[in-house]
Amino acid sequence: MNKRKQEILDAVKDDLEAIEKALQDHLHPHFELVSQIANHILFSGGKRLRPLLTILSARLCRYEGTLVTTLSCVFEYLHAATLLHDDIVDAATLRRGKPVAHLTWENSTVVLVGDFLLARSVSIAAQTGLPAIVEIIAYITENMSQGEIRQMLNKNRSDLTEAEYLDVIRSKTAVLFQGACRASALIAQSSSEEETALANYGYNLGLAFQMADDLLDYTTDSVALGKEVGADLKEGKVTLPVIYALKKAEPEIRQQMEAIIINKDFNSEDFETLRLFLKKYQGIEYTKKQAAQYAAEAKDALAVFEPSLTKQILLDVADYALSRKS
Amino acid sequence: MNKRKQEILDAVKDDLEAIEKALQDHLHPHFELVSQIANHILFSGGKRLRPLLTILSARLCRYEGTLVTTLSCVFEYLHAATLLHDDIVDAATLRRGKPVAHLTWENSTVVLVGDFLLARSVSIAAQTGLPAIVEIIAYITENMSQGEIRQMLNKNRSDLTEAEYLDVIRSKTAVLFQGACRASALIAQSSSEEETALANYGYNLGLAFQMADDLLDYTTDSVALGKEVGADLKEGKVTLPVIYALKKAEPEIRQQMEAIIINKDFNSEDFETLRLFLKKYQGIEYTKKQAAQYAAEAKDALAVFEPSLTKQILLDVADYALSRKS
Repeated sequence: MNKRKQEILDAVKDDLEAIEKALQDHLHPHFELVSQIANHILFSGGKRLRPLLTILSARLCRYEGTLVTTLSCVFEYLHAATLLHDDIVDAATLRRGKPVAHLTWENSTVVLVGDFLLARSVSIAAQTGLPAIVEIIAYITENMSQGEIRQMLNKNRSDLTEAEYLDVIRSKTAVLFQGACRASALIAQSSSEEETALANYGYNLGLAFQMADDLLDYTTDSVALGKEVGADLKEGKVTLPVIYALKKAEPEIRQQMEAIIINKDFNSEDFETLRLFLKKYQGIEYTKKQAAQYAAEAKDALAVFEPSLTKQILLDVADYALSRKS
Repeated sequence: MNKRKQEILDAVKDDLEAIEKALQDHLHPHFELVSQIANHILFSGGKRLRPLLTILSARLCRYEGTLVTTLSCVFEYLHAATLLHDDIVDAATLRRGKPVAHLTWENSTVVLVGDFLLARSVSIAAQTGLPAIVEIIAYITENMSQGEIRQMLNKNRSDLTEAEYLDVIRSKTAVLFQGACRASALIAQSSSEEETALANYGYNLGLAFQMADDLLDYTTDSVALGKEVGADLKEGKVTLPVIYALKKAEPEIRQQMEAIIINKDFNSEDFETLRLFLKKYQGIEYTKKQAAQYAAEAKDALAVFEPSLTKQILLDVADYALSRKS
């Protein structure tokens, strides 16, 4: 674990404990099977980044109520629901170093537990009695569903543009990060200036985070990653490092790369070849630069807030998003 | 088509047209594929019973605003979302005489379109800006998801009790009917007496409707039903006619029935045998009686309203729920 990550974890230790407890307390699974599957996806080493953003954002807005921990669960449940359905769509095999849920339980069961987690999110949001919070959840849910569909339709498309890629990660990831931060400004009844600042922080952080995540598939090994190396490529996901390198490569090399991308049964040699090209044609470098730029924009967005420990943690989180190894 | 159904259809012709238009207008599918699958499930001869209940309930509450047609879509989208996920869980083959969506498109695609329809429901509910409406949707969504899971866990259980059966149809069907009616009392700002009356009407109608629906599997033929004869049994669904007959049958016959219920590959002869037993041991009769009782309770609930054409249609709908042939 790198130093920055450890520093952040030390600073938010109590918050993380409160989040773990709240995630258990608000689940109300009714059935043992639901509990098992929900636990499998919820309590298997997730980073809790989304609920943590909610709690830190509320603190930044000087919120002193008790609603925020409960509210923070909404974003983790939404995230978990999407992961369950996603892993089915992607026919994924590993997540966080463990077999994905649909390998242990039937696909159909996993679908229903995903629905249940989504329903819990909506219920908790409704219980706040705040229409603006519900609107955020509706907006996130709809965007994520559209994003997933878009991603599915984009599978194995070697002609995917950077704009199309951005569109997917915007609706899949950035909108959820944005909502997790913005919701806190709403419950804190902050100024619209602070609300916009947190929304922009979350949105840009989400883009940076997803780009860094997509990079990991080409820059780290399987054990650190907790999933198969080349999993994105196997699932047909064409991400920014690939898109950029394809654009820069000579026609001949481009053809060679395309053949690997289209072939679902590429071997480790093919994958190494692709990795070399991603490096050679600056796909890795460009993606890093883009992610760093969005992280910088996230940090800039917080300029409206006075310096504080909480603000420093949020700034550190943006740096961490870039430097993380898993 | 029976006379009562035709009379109801004539009386609500304009409402049904408005519902069709609204269902198209509020879908916002973004992608052709989503449009295709959503159209497949939404525009393939559904009865529009749920949105119709919303519109008629609003009229009964003297509502004069424009929100109701939009609101009515929420309940049809929720219904359609559940059907898409359900048909996957049940490995169903036919719905309304057509192959189910997951036979034409991939399971995973159908899952995502179900998520999309659910997201649209939440979005439209959020747009009303009425926390009480959102609470209804959250309550329905959570109940339906729990009901589906419960139903799945109950599959092929020949020891299922009537109470367990009721629990499933309550959360799967009755709560949605209840919400579709109650929501209108809320937007009309009706008295709590009228709100309760409509909630009770919808709830009891839902139970009657589902029991009648479960009866159809044993009392009608495949063409009229639009799905395979014995589909419930094939999907492992143990419904009230079976539960009651099992309870009344002598041990020997009970064993014979259980063997058919447990066997997924029962043939048409087995099915006929089971049908005879359901008749002989009053499973059919008892279910009819129970459905009739809930329909009567639904009608009684409307006593607080003055006589009117709208009230008469709602009363007729309760009768139709019992008499329908498909």
